[in-house]
Amino acid sequence: MVKVVLIGSGNLAQHLIVAFQKAEKSGNAIQLLQVYARSADTLSHLLPAEKITSSFDTLQNADVYIIAVSDNAIATVASQLPFENKLVVHTSGAMPMDALDVKNRRGVFYPLQTFTKNKKVAFDGIPICLETEQMEDLNILEALAKTISKKGITIHPEQRKALHVAAVFVNNFTNHLYQIGETICKEHQVPFDILHPLIEETAAKIKNISPSEAQTGPAIRKDSKTIAAHQALLNDPTQKQLYTILTQSIQDNVKKL
Amino acid sequence: MVKVVLIGSGNLAQHLIVAFQKAEKSGNAIQLLQVYARSADTLSHLLPAEKITSSFDTLQNADVYIIAVSDNAIATVASQLPFENKLVVHTSGAMPMDALDVKNRRGVFYPLQTFTKNKKVAFDGIPICLETEQMEDLNILEALAKTISKKGITIHPEQRKALHVAAVFVNNFTNHLYQIGETICKEHQVPFDILHPLIEETAAKIKNISPSEAQTGPAIRKDSKTIAAHQALLNDPTQKQLYTILTQSIQDNVKKL
Repeated sequence: MVKVVLIGSGNLAQHLIVAFQKAEKSGNAIQLLQVYARSADTLSHLLPAEKITSSFDTLQNADVYIIAVSDNAIATVASQLPFENKLVVHTSGAMPMDALDVKNRRGVFYPLQTFTKNKKVAFDGIPICLETEQMEDLNILEALAKTISKKGITIHPEQRKALHVAAVFVNNFTNHLYQIGETICKEHQVPFDILHPLIEETAAKIKNISPSEAQTGPAIRKDSKTIAAHQALLNDPTQKQLYTILTQSIQDNVKKL
Repeated sequence: MVKVVLIGSGNLAQHLIVAFQKAEKSGNAIQLLQVYARSADTLSHLLPAEKITSSFDTLQNADVYIIAVSDNAIATVASQLPFENKLVVHTSGAMPMDALDVKNRRGVFYPLQTFTKNKKVAFDGIPICLETEQMEDLNILEALAKTISKKGITIHPEQRKALHVAAVFVNNFTNHLYQIGETICKEHQVPFDILHPLIEETAAKIKNISPSEAQTGPAIRKDSKTIAAHQALLNDPTQKQLYTILTQSIQDNVKKL
């Protein structure tokens, strides 16, 4: 039984509360003792009042303390904890483990997923990247990860950094390309949802074949007529620049393979 | 009953053959009379020999002739057809309708999807963009589209062009970002499939909320520390340049909203 105290009330914290509670109800070996929130109201729809605290001094004794706050706040929160030599982890893809105060045993519990407010996420298939200073603490995090996901993965700090950059490309930047697609559709009075099946298939495809095999389109065909026509249609200078660089990058990449 | 002759044996042609045959078997009002292929062998796994021809002179009398060949070959094929005043359409997102020879009634039948060899695609949900010169021909294409998909959509030439550019962003360019993600993972000995759930959720998300609402990550948070750390980790100059421009574009976009 892993006893957990969660610190934070934001988007990821709320998704974790839901996941931990679901795991508890399913009889998994986890107990969410308490959640810290600066303002208890933010969590009252998720938890009974007695499980929420707004004071670090009333934090209960747990096996692991999960700090699920914004990257910039991690160090401050970690230094305010009124105890020592306990397992304290953060949930960030980008921050080093030593953003946490050295007075406690440190670790990282990083669920590799994009979390949207009010949109349920199945934790089941989400990889949770784990790091600790001490081997025994890794066992605790693995046991905890197992209660909500099938994919607890031990990684090194350098791997987590790289994963986070890769995640920015396949998630944040990809979403921005969706947005550009939406803008182009709007400008020409075409409903964006016509593109939904294409977006879905593009994402589904690479589960079976690697992205380099899956590449199609005018860039890889070196179809210079179509490329020129597309560039002529784009009015926005940034869109045009992105079109040019991405086309070039696709073509350069073929040479490297 | 729409009688169809298909011209072409490539990737899209083969997917259409499968879809039309499935529709025929389900009793939908379509009949695939014949398919033209330069070499009959390429289609022998899909069709009985008597349905394949390698000579334009033996093409049967149909309601619509679908030219599903590469963009560059459309004009040549259309001009070689030994008949006049019949409905001839191409399947390209990028080519204008008048790539087709004026001796026939012209149109476009453009399924907006990415087609991969040996990967089944459910035509059911695929939008098929339709254009014709004459109103009665639009009825034929609509009837045909209905036999394989729920989404036959009449669009204007300018809309199709815009859709095709938008499709390049959300499909070809997105796939390239996946490939960059895979490259970064490989360089750091992380299996790329750790990112699959994230890729899937990123694509699923925008069915319910618009991409501009769905945007997350260091760029939109203006998290300059993380951005700098990511740029330092990228060795490839093109990857670095893309990171910078996409980050800038996300930030500029917020100002526009």
